[in-house]
Amino acid sequence: MILAQSQILQCYNNFEVNEMKPITKKILQDTIRIRPTQSFKGTYGKIALIGGNQNFGGAIIMSSLGAVYAGVGLTTTITDSSNQSSLHNWVPEAMYLDYHDEPAVKALIANMDVINIGSGLGTDEKSLSLLKTVFASVSPTQILVVDGSAIDLIASNNLSLPKTKLIFTPHQMEWQKLSGVKIKDQNENTNLAAYNNLFKQQGSIVVVKSHRTQVLTPTGSFVNTVGTPAQATGGMGDTLAGIIGGFVAQFENTENAVLAAVYTHSAIADELAKKQYVVLPHQISEALPQFMKKNEA
Amino acid sequence: MILAQSQILQCYNNFEVNEMKPITKKILQDTIRIRPTQSFKGTYGKIALIGGNQNFGGAIIMSSLGAVYAGVGLTTTITDSSNQSSLHNWVPEAMYLDYHDEPAVKALIANMDVINIGSGLGTDEKSLSLLKTVFASVSPTQILVVDGSAIDLIASNNLSLPKTKLIFTPHQMEWQKLSGVKIKDQNENTNLAAYNNLFKQQGSIVVVKSHRTQVLTPTGSFVNTVGTPAQATGGMGDTLAGIIGGFVAQFENTENAVLAAVYTHSAIADELAKKQYVVLPHQISEALPQFMKKNEA
Amino acid sequence: MILAQSQILQCYNNFEVNEMKPITKKILQDTIRIRPTQSFKGTYGKIALIGGNQNFGGAIIMSSLGAVYAGVGLTTTITDSSNQSSLHNWVPEAMYLDYHDEPAVKALIANMDVINIGSGLGTDEKSLSLLKTVFASVSPTQILVVDGSAIDLIASNNLSLPKTKLIFTPHQMEWQKLSGVKIKDQNENTNLAAYNNLFKQQGSIVVVKSHRTQVLTPTGSFVNTVGTPAQATGGMGDTLAGIIGGFVAQFENTENAVLAAVYTHSAIADELAKKQYVVLPHQISEALPQFMKKNEA
Amino acid sequence: MILAQSQILQCYNNFEVNEMKPITKKILQDTIRIRPTQSFKGTYGKIALIGGNQNFGGAIIMSSLGAVYAGVGLTTTITDSSNQSSLHNWVPEAMYLDYHDEPAVKALIANMDVINIGSGLGTDEKSLSLLKTVFASVSPTQILVVDGSAIDLIASNNLSLPKTKLIFTPHQMEWQKLSGVKIKDQNENTNLAAYNNLFKQQGSIVVVKSHRTQVLTPTGSFVNTVGTPAQATGGMGDTLAGIIGGFVAQFENTENAVLAAVYTHSAIADELAKKQYVVLPHQISEALPQFMKKNEA
Repeated sequence: MILAQSQILQCYNNFEVNEMKPITKKILQDTIRIRPTQSFKGTYGKIALIGGNQNFGGAIIMSSLGAVYAGVGLTTTITDSSNQSSLHNWVPEAMYLDYHDEPAVKALIANMDVINIGSGLGTDEKSLSLLKTVFASVSPTQILVVDGSAIDLIASNNLSLPKTKLIFTPHQMEWQKLSGVKIKDQNENTNLAAYNNLFKQQGSIVVVKSHRTQVLTPTGSFVNTVGTPAQATGGMGDTLAGIIGGFVAQFENTENAVLAAVYTHSAIADELAKKQYVVLPHQISEALPQFMKKNEA
Repeated sequence: MILAQSQILQCYNNFEVNEMKPITKKILQDTIRIRPTQSFKGTYGKIALIGGNQNFGGAIIMSSLGAVYAGVGLTTTITDSSNQSSLHNWVPEAMYLDYHDEPAVKALIANMDVINIGSGLGTDEKSLSLLKTVFASVSPTQILVVDGSAIDLIASNNLSLPKTKLIFTPHQMEWQKLSGVKIKDQNENTNLAAYNNLFKQQGSIVVVKSHRTQVLTPTGSFVNTVGTPAQATGGMGDTLAGIIGGFVAQFENTENAVLAAVYTHSAIADELAKKQYVVLPHQISEALPQFMKKNEA
Repeated sequence: MILAQSQILQCYNNFEVNEMKPITKKILQDTIRIRPTQSFKGTYGKIALIGGNQNFGGAIIMSSLGAVYAGVGLTTTITDSSNQSSLHNWVPEAMYLDYHDEPAVKALIANMDVINIGSGLGTDEKSLSLLKTVFASVSPTQILVVDGSAIDLIASNNLSLPKTKLIFTPHQMEWQKLSGVKIKDQNENTNLAAYNNLFKQQGSIVVVKSHRTQVLTPTGSFVNTVGTPAQATGGMGDTLAGIIGGFVAQFENTENAVLAAVYTHSAIADELAKKQYVVLPHQISEALPQFMKKNEA
Repeated sequence: MILAQSQILQCYNNFEVNEMKPITKKILQDTIRIRPTQSFKGTYGKIALIGGNQNFGGAIIMSSLGAVYAGVGLTTTITDSSNQSSLHNWVPEAMYLDYHDEPAVKALIANMDVINIGSGLGTDEKSLSLLKTVFASVSPTQILVVDGSAIDLIASNNLSLPKTKLIFTPHQMEWQKLSGVKIKDQNENTNLAAYNNLFKQQGSIVVVKSHRTQVLTPTGSFVNTVGTPAQATGGMGDTLAGIIGGFVAQFENTENAVLAAVYTHSAIADELAKKQYVVLPHQISEALPQFMKKNEA
């Protein structure tokens, strides 16, 4: 699945230059719909978020916070039991499942619209086993958001990807592992070339996170126009993964939902950064309901 | 206890059409009394809330939050021990009891004015056992609020109901299980017919939750006039159950208390939804003291 | 130690009527001093708060919150280990000690200026053992605040009181147990008579909590002039005990400190109750730093 | 390592009087740089904070809060497992490691830019073992902040210091243990003399905390010009240690970073103390992002 460095360079030489499309405020109006009066929890989707081992519980908490505050209908967080209490302290709205109970995990995810895996998951045997369980369980009608350690695990174990709608959210090192493009060689063109070779056919979406995040989709290459260095702090990516999950669970056009989530995450940070030297990830999630209200259409 | 579908249809053909009475702001002035100067904790009632297994701890936390912020005098939350810490993080004002200690549960509920059961209770053997214990223990002078999984358990085990003041808070699927009226057939008339056949005689109250919640009481059928799709998120019903418990514990007219709780829950959400795309259940509870103050009479 | 009912009535007939002195805002200016520039943690005292069994962890948390937000220099909370995490969630500023480790408890309290015992302590063998340990350990120069279950334990076990500065904070039922005066017979005169017979000689202070709290001291009988029925909710007394502990640890005149704490607790509640139907105990503690600043002199 | 009292007195007689340089607002403009647009988490450093035994978990939480809210890129808190949940309740942004897993601790700190040790660490065998592990592991390019119990342990075990950039943050009693200068003899001159003899050669920085904190560095002796008695409460020092760690992880000039952290910590307290009788340590951390934004240059 992973291109050799020589293959990447060949792509780079051959590909046709595509202009990057800017992700602007307009994506919000195209995506965040005014909620219909006659609706219920099921209207806004069901999401399961899987991650958070004993060391990285904060990651899955922040991701869950993003999904819940984005407005998803029902949220279940599947994590190590040592994170149960702190999860409920932040989001009592999320249900909990111990990720060691794989039969229950399998049964639960069968009923989900969206599954997020990877925030704080870790890369040990347990993590790999969970990832394989998820890959073996998801159906083509579900959306699978793959973040953090899950990307590492795919690359290091050369895992085959399941036949479902996939959204990857790598930072630059994870993208290197996933695509074979080294960080120093990563740019809009090499990223697009690798995407076209590896992910386009299945219709996957890749969010390559950096100070100007690039989103690669079957319809083209997009670049975020907002964002601030005040966001450069641990947990920012976990929060983004949660918001993406929350948006794709609610909004019909998945590509637009991802683009809108990427824009929203950074636009809120920009707003907060006017008065803050650093923006804490959980503050972005807590600001979601107000931001989305202002930008619904 | 459960009507067959044919019986329901028969009811539907026979019943007399009753106009639904709107639940409006007036119910607040009829219910939320200015507190008398000479009063103490006991004046405002004692409530026990039972629920929250290892998976659904957030549900009983949100329900407890609703009761405490509604102003009940003394609150005890009876739940799985894994929820003790997160309960106290949200409401140190609530006392805690491990729901596995059934003798202690039995002793405690004997002294309560109101008992809530079902928020996040689950439907396993343990849950059923607890529910049976409560049904066997409550006295005619107590009020029992039956929510969530407890409704499922009643329906699936065809349990006989105890001779006490009962308040049911089913969502549409739970109402289907409890009444036999399928969701697609549920409307103000079929709901009333089923209520009249099954619950009216004992004087029970049923709150059928939907985007326009219907309340069925011995004096008639009421429909909520407020509420927003921003409320369509997990935990909203648990919060309502807690507020209902808190209101019936404090206010003498139980029917009015339920109607006022249903109105309050949605009216606060409407207010918050002016600035929020989604309203988190815990935010409604936290807004209760201010809302009730504005509407006391 | 406890008077028989006949003895009480005899007192009632014999005693000289003392006018109750009102506790007014003036007590704040007499008590809350502007902090000296050259000071350090030790200047503001060391307090240990003992209580909070597995069921009543919230009580000792609320009490600790009161002490810390009142400005005490160093706080240690001695409680059941199941409360460690929720304690730190509310007040990371408090240190923790497992109350099962009695040798450590004994060693720690030897270094304290003030010891609070009783909030959420419970009345089982463990609680009694802890109370006896404290009674056996305190020295005449320390102040001991006795609240909640500790008062029950003293009465039901007819414990001898230690020779130290004692402050009791009973509600009316606890006062009945402690003094022998039945609730229906409690009034400013019977309370004072019982106080004079039982507690005056040792110089103890008794705070009889009700909708108009009475404070009995060697210099007379005082009645609170503020307070609201919005305070009638569980945890209010635990919070008061913590504030009293925090005040006597900081302010030299112990009697004034108790009176000022009683006034402060209710005055904050009055302020909050202008906009809230119910005032949550933890909100009073959180408002302490601002209130005290406005009233320092 | 520790001077005898006679040696101190000799120093005192011989030393050349240096004027203390005031730490003023100017240090902020010299230190807190506007963040470069092209940056990522790594740009702002990686810190590990080690401390928090079963009794003092709040200390390491407050220290971690200081580092994260100061804007450090990646934070890991190494503490007793009983603090995992409360840590994540305050700062989900921090990763967690059980401090009993010394091989993992060793591996993790190898990748850190800054290591803080001592806040709430305690002084038992376990604490000593951890401190020795850290001393044996740190490299000359890392910065080590030594706080609280770690200073006690160094003094009482006469430990040799590692060859790395060291920052000590003793309060007056800890400084007595570390330097041999008794509290009653501590003043700007004796402190400087002891510093020059014991710490200057290696280039260490010492922050002697008091109501007017003194900072001793290879370039001279500095005195804080801000600070308030409202800060005299437990946890204040732990918070300062965390902020120092967060500043030295981000800002290139280590000496300036320490001075700016000391100033920032007290300047925020001064601001809060205008409206608060006591300033809670966690409130200072929470105010960092706004304060730093106003003072970046």
